[in-house]
Amino acid sequence: MIIDIHGHLSAPPELYAFRSTLLASRGFQIKGRPTIADARMQEETDAHLALLDGVGTDRQLISPRPYALMHDQKPTRIVDLWVGANNDAIAQACAQAPDRFSGVAGLPQNVEMNWTASLKELERCVVELGFVGCLINPDPAEGLGSPPTMGEEAWYPLYEKMCELDVPALVHPAGCQNEREAYGAHFITEESIAIHSLVNSDVFERFPELKIVIAHGGGSVPYQIGRWRASAVRMGADRDGFDNALRKLYFDTVLYSPESLEYLLRVVGPDRCMFGTELPGFGSYPDTATGRNFDDLKPVIEDIDWLGDEGRQQVFEGNARTVFTRLK
Amino acid sequence: MIIDIHGHLSAPPELYAFRSTLLASRGFQIKGRPTIADARMQEETDAHLALLDGVGTDRQLISPRPYALMHDQKPTRIVDLWVGANNDAIAQACAQAPDRFSGVAGLPQNVEMNWTASLKELERCVVELGFVGCLINPDPAEGLGSPPTMGEEAWYPLYEKMCELDVPALVHPAGCQNEREAYGAHFITEESIAIHSLVNSDVFERFPELKIVIAHGGGSVPYQIGRWRASAVRMGADRDGFDNALRKLYFDTVLYSPESLEYLLRVVGPDRCMFGTELPGFGSYPDTATGRNFDDLKPVIEDIDWLGDEGRQQVFEGNARTVFTRLK
Repeated sequence: MIIDIHGHLSAPPELYAFRSTLLASRGFQIKGRPTIADARMQEETDAHLALLDGVGTDRQLISPRPYALMHDQKPTRIVDLWVGANNDAIAQACAQAPDRFSGVAGLPQNVEMNWTASLKELERCVVELGFVGCLINPDPAEGLGSPPTMGEEAWYPLYEKMCELDVPALVHPAGCQNEREAYGAHFITEESIAIHSLVNSDVFERFPELKIVIAHGGGSVPYQIGRWRASAVRMGADRDGFDNALRKLYFDTVLYSPESLEYLLRVVGPDRCMFGTELPGFGSYPDTATGRNFDDLKPVIEDIDWLGDEGRQQVFEGNARTVFTRLK
Repeated sequence: MIIDIHGHLSAPPELYAFRSTLLASRGFQIKGRPTIADARMQEETDAHLALLDGVGTDRQLISPRPYALMHDQKPTRIVDLWVGANNDAIAQACAQAPDRFSGVAGLPQNVEMNWTASLKELERCVVELGFVGCLINPDPAEGLGSPPTMGEEAWYPLYEKMCELDVPALVHPAGCQNEREAYGAHFITEESIAIHSLVNSDVFERFPELKIVIAHGGGSVPYQIGRWRASAVRMGADRDGFDNALRKLYFDTVLYSPESLEYLLRVVGPDRCMFGTELPGFGSYPDTATGRNFDDLKPVIEDIDWLGDEGRQQVFEGNARTVFTRLK
């Protein structure tokens, strides 16, 4: 079975029109979240499933499109409404394809690190809607500030709730308002910052049940690993200190070149990697070198001989089942 | 011959005490730059050369220690004095070991992108002191702002002067004042931002003679290359559009794991890579897996069979001579 842990919602324009209205109105006279007609959502669901069928994906975990999450916006009420609307739409898609989709909740985060709305929304999504995980934006300031990094105490309330509900998180940055960096590049920056902060913290000692997956193959960290090995040795760790610390985390395979995907698997190990493609998304464009789209990663992993059947099973299904324990 | 294009000055505490004085005084009643006694500098030079001898490096290009460059500090006069003092000390070290060291100038950059002092200092270093290149900090705001990225017009005055003097630049970020990111991680972030900005600009059409080397193996970009290939295809380029654009740049080999160093060479090609170690520096700690220090990269490159004699010659010497044309 092939489980893709990194997918995003396909929704009709009605959903994104609501975001536009929220931004234009700042929430004034907005009473609640929109309803999307089932038939309209079904069109999106069918088109999305056809893509999954085309590449042989059996199940995909879907979350809101991160770059549009607008965690930096004020008042926070519009963020709450918007993220709730996304999660509603995900639940609707999951109900239309219960054997194919599982929900991963967006959280209405904010720069103040006030978790009240997020914890409530996470509980709603997991307990009422049957979601199996959540998305964490490590930078709710979206490139224009200095919010606490993921190893810091300000994050503990979320980790407590995640452990209580037994749900993992996919660390996936959202928008970027700093003109120096495109949002898709900011993802890589912030994933790297999140990894360093977590592995240099005592978060996993405080929350032994916490499960964190880093998107896009771990940002820059696996490639720059020699640097961090040396740095750990300088700080008194042994040679494998950084590698061992990295094994507290999981990584997805959303790397669209075969060479870097194999490199990731070698560096962090097949037991820490989960199949992810983000289909349809950033990689849904043709790679003439392979004759497939960049995000068609199943054949890439099948072609890595040294993985063996066991390694492939871990990446395609086993690790996802270990980590996303609520996955049926 | 082995040329290491990424080294930094080894100087006695007298130099760094001057920085401390500048910061404490903000330049008040500081008349000029300090003089370091030749004998004191000779001790540093001898110790540094012993390290180069130990790993078989024939010549090293040395620049100021980037993380201490303090480009964000005010008044700009203290930055001018400090960078000038560093370049003086580099000239002193080069005079003590003319067959081993070549100078790479630090520039007194500032967030306002006023280039007057930098252009004057670059000319002094190249014409009067015989330096062969310069260091560029792509983020003079040091993590707390939004200065123009390297593809933007604000950088053109520097590029003009570099072309006029026929000197390349090593893009090497400096300090980081944003607590979210250690300076050594900010290097990787900013190198990646610089690459994206340059390859998406017309800088190399405007300045066909411009030569830019990206430090630390290109930040995150080679590892995440599939992402940028897909993104380029989305924007209308062909499949190799991003790879071709990347070949406008050069990269050093300051990657302290053999796997990532080989990966870099495969992705960007041996004709775009230059031997660099930063010895002594971030990687000068023992790697028990190899029995050598992390930054002892000559044996790593020698062990890559597919490079062949031609590829190794390019990396160790040929590319450096092509790019750093003032190197005797």
